Amino acid sequence: MADLIKKSAEEFAKEQKEISISEFFEKNKHLLGFDNPTKALLMTVKEAVDNSLDACEEAGVLPDITVKIKQTGEDRFRVIIQDNGPGIVKEQVPRIFGKLLYGSKFHRLRQSRGQQGIGISAVVLYSQLTTGSPTKVWSRTDEKKKVHYYELFINTSKNEPEIVKEEALDEGMERGVKVEIDVVGRYRKTQGVDDYMKQTSIANPFAKMIYHAPDGTKMTFPRSFDALPKPPKEMRMHPYGVEFGILQRFLTKTNSKTLLSFLTNEFSSVGTQTAKEICKTARLDANAKPSSLDRAAAEKLLGAMQKVKIQRPPTDCLSPIGEQELEKSLKKEYPQAEFVSVIEREPEVYGGMPFQIEVGVVFGNVGGLEEPIDFARIANRVPLLYQAGACATMEAVKEVDWKRYGLQQPKNSLPVGPMILVIHMTSVWVPFVSESKEAIAPYPEIVKEMKLAVQDAARELSRYLSGKRRAGEAKRRIQIFERYAKEVASSLSVITGEKENAIEKKLLGIIENKNKMKDFEQQEAVQPPQFAAAATAGKEKKEKPRQTEEE
Amino acid sequence: MADLIKKSAEEFAKEQKEISISEFFEKNKHLLGFDNPTKALLMTVKEAVDNSLDACEEAGVLPDITVKIKQTGEDRFRVIIQDNGPGIVKEQVPRIFGKLLYGSKFHRLRQSRGQQGIGISAVVLYSQLTTGSPTKVWSRTDEKKKVHYYELFINTSKNEPEIVKEEALDEGMERGVKVEIDVVGRYRKTQGVDDYMKQTSIANPFAKMIYHAPDGTKMTFPRSFDALPKPPKEMRMHPYGVEFGILQRFLTKTNSKTLLSFLTNEFSSVGTQTAKEICKTARLDANAKPSSLDRAAAEKLLGAMQKVKIQRPPTDCLSPIGEQELEKSLKKEYPQAEFVSVIEREPEVYGGMPFQIEVGVVFGNVGGLEEPIDFARIANRVPLLYQAGACATMEAVKEVDWKRYGLQQPKNSLPVGPMILVIHMTSVWVPFVSESKEAIAPYPEIVKEMKLAVQDAARELSRYLSGKRRAGEAKRRIQIFERYAKEVASSLSVITGEKENAIEKKLLGIIENKNKMKDFEQQEAVQPPQFAAAATAGKEKKEKPRQTEEE
Repeated sequence: MADLIKKSAEEFAKEQKEISISEFFEKNKHLLGFDNPTKALLMTVKEAVDNSLDACEEAGVLPDITVKIKQTGEDRFRVIIQDNGPGIVKEQVPRIFGKLLYGSKFHRLRQSRGQQGIGISAVVLYSQLTTGSPTKVWSRTDEKKKVHYYELFINTSKNEPEIVKEEALDEGMERGVKVEIDVVGRYRKTQGVDDYMKQTSIANPFAKMIYHAPDGTKMTFPRSFDALPKPPKEMRMHPYGVEFGILQRFLTKTNSKTLLSFLTNEFSSVGTQTAKEICKTARLDANAKPSSLDRAAAEKLLGAMQKVKIQRPPTDCLSPIGEQELEKSLKKEYPQAEFVSVIEREPEVYGGMPFQIEVGVVFGNVGGLEEPIDFARIANRVPLLYQAGACATMEAVKEVDWKRYGLQQPKNSLPVGPMILVIHMTSVWVPFVSESKEAIAPYPEIVKEMKLAVQDAARELSRYLSGKRRAGEAKRRIQIFERYAKEVASSLSVITGEKENAIEKKLLGIIENKNKMKDFEQQEAVQPPQFAAAATAGKEKKEKPRQTEEE
Repeated sequence: MADLIKKSAEEFAKEQKEISISEFFEKNKHLLGFDNPTKALLMTVKEAVDNSLDACEEAGVLPDITVKIKQTGEDRFRVIIQDNGPGIVKEQVPRIFGKLLYGSKFHRLRQSRGQQGIGISAVVLYSQLTTGSPTKVWSRTDEKKKVHYYELFINTSKNEPEIVKEEALDEGMERGVKVEIDVVGRYRKTQGVDDYMKQTSIANPFAKMIYHAPDGTKMTFPRSFDALPKPPKEMRMHPYGVEFGILQRFLTKTNSKTLLSFLTNEFSSVGTQTAKEICKTARLDANAKPSSLDRAAAEKLLGAMQKVKIQRPPTDCLSPIGEQELEKSLKKEYPQAEFVSVIEREPEVYGGMPFQIEVGVVFGNVGGLEEPIDFARIANRVPLLYQAGACATMEAVKEVDWKRYGLQQPKNSLPVGPMILVIHMTSVWVPFVSESKEAIAPYPEIVKEMKLAVQDAARELSRYLSGKRRAGEAKRRIQIFERYAKEVASSLSVITGEKENAIEKKLLGIIENKNKMKDFEQQEAVQPPQFAAAATAGKEKKEKPRQTEEE
């Protein structure tokens, strides 16, 4: 029975074939974030702007970026993005735009917006799939040089650029890159390009951006800081984040002659002392040739690398927005807000990767009173607009007991109130839950740190809110005191025999002093004993209006 | 200012580099489902077993699969999987196991478990990353031929197999493939390999599987059907699912000489009449050469292809489990259950792709009484164990108003009760939300169809439950009737003058007849008028015990 095969191994073999990464993502475009037209339009702008900001920042240029979206058909849009960055050399243009998994950011550990080498070429792929149009690119690296102009597609079965047109132009633009991409999309005012532009401006206060929306509106996002942030440094891998297969590869490829120099050269935070201790713990000769280590020895080495106490990774590879910068940025964007506060935590580590969390709180006159708070998630200065439910930030915010900080919170939900919460994660490698980079994977270390940061910020908010509540209370007490002053004066007049008018005047004088509403509670404690009765009367009464307010 | 560049385009260019897909997934292994040790162990078994089942089914062999997991260290496992399939020819072994994005299933539209060419090589990648061990593969395509034995790694920077050892053995196994893979993992009884094996057996009733769990337990899953399902046919693309870029490529590459033959040859469900109508609607010459169509003409053609009414795609490309087969399978797996019912819907279409939904309900003596129902999600006969929250099935189940069908349901949650719900989706292309294929993307057409299927099944369950309730009610009424029979007889004796004993006997006789509990309601309606009072007494009383039951 088992011998009757309808299709032989040889027949199977004829069908086996390589699949190019472009074909793969063409068929799985939802993995790249192109699963609906609104998102597709957003992704188009986002990938181009993120690249421009990365290039400007790395080249040390204050970014000047223009985004233009024109509606060219019922569901067709032309997106034009231009920057003042370093430009791209002629030979690199086709591959950067016309080849997936190509770039400068994947093979290093350095904080940047892009990290995968997929983004902009995915946009080109989506553009040709939905509109059949080539992507147009202009690049100029120097005003003394020509403008390189390309029209290109991706050859999906080869994952290689297919150049349709190529020209050297004498003029037409200054230094930088300009792209023009046609896509099938949809323009929405919320959770789309407008939100992305606004949040990008908050997270990149040193960038100037001009945005022409498809409906004709022109928005200018000026710089709120005139200097680039301190550039993040590239780092080596931290021993705590190394896996066995990686260690084996490092051992084979290193130029270091001894295990000791291997450890200090290839990994971050390992000095000679630590390297010696690792060798000792692993019972390996510090002078051994790295490539001579066999499997068992490599396993011992890895064990020791993860057992020995090693310094945290360096933090100069992180470039957060900054407390002052983020606060200024938020105040610029929400001038009507009552209260703005920013928390920047110390760097922390997950799987050997350093990361840092910043949280901003904007309260009052923003969002709806009875609605869930607005929530901006940002990773390496890039706003994340989708998949909030899968994001570490959401987990952290829901885990906080917001009632303790004066906000209502339905079970397992965002708190309710006129508030915007901003969470920013900076890292040399942000672990995203999908290629579309819409949500941060909820590693326990990351969620914990975000929660602590949010609690820090919530405490500041709570202090502000209770100050506000106290002020309101003091005012109410005074009003009650004023209301009863005449009666109290009359009673005191009977008891003391003094004139009612004189007593009332004195009473109101006291109130006037207190009207400054400073240290009301303390003053109350030291007031003369003869007024205790009146004060108590006020105290008893005060409960009522407070309850009314809560109803 | 803008001219002072710290890093030039030339310097950037030096850093630009190709990223291999293996490197990409090595750094992003969570995208492939290897984000925790429990899942990693499951993925290892799953990818190998899915491949074995696909190969056996396509070769027309009744699958006989053995899965062995041995714990070899604190967090180390050795997984051995052997099948009786067609085997793999020598030359293909290295690439199938040692190269990502390689396979026979991606470039065709045919229902199968695998579809991406990533699965088993991802396991090899994870294995070498976490344990540094090569994967061992034995393959024999015919008992007259030798066994090909390989030990291999993936060269991640090239995404090519790296062969460590290669041998031709004379014996050691019969026809088929055997793999041995070491991984870092964790063994859990729930949401792991055990659940996967059980659900796989339910969805593949024609497969025999033997499973040796790491704790020494041996489980045998026998066949409940001795025949393979009807093999699904390969299909061509349906015009409704075509995108512009794809159409352009088809137009260039086709061998068809005219637009008319292009349409009938390259697409499914397009006959000569439909093809003529498409040309007419597009105002294009049916005899035009396909490659001669320019952009504007291609756009008109696509518009017409999506406007003209075209038959649904063929359904012979779908191979569901089958109503009888699934029911038998569920009864075999849950012999203690009170009630089992299976619904198979007619095929439907999303984005030009045919798909079909089957739903099974197992009720009573399974799961907890007060707990959410157990929920098995299956896609092309493969159980999905993670990311339920992101899955179309979950959306569908939550959208059903379960109270209408007699089950409790907390808001926005799964219903509560002793029940197992199985949802199976069959398609030539299941849209998964990530490479790890854990959840079905919630396309509206898919969710809608799943909801309808679940409602169909829930109606059957509801009928069963109300029958059960009626039976319980009837029984209670009879008990009351018996309790009051003596009193009623005494009253009737006074009224009619007949003997009390005789009346009681008659009354109890009636009850005995009714004791069969059949058509109680109907008999009640036609009973002799003199018994109306007694019946009514019983009716009034019956409310009480029912309320008690509900408390």
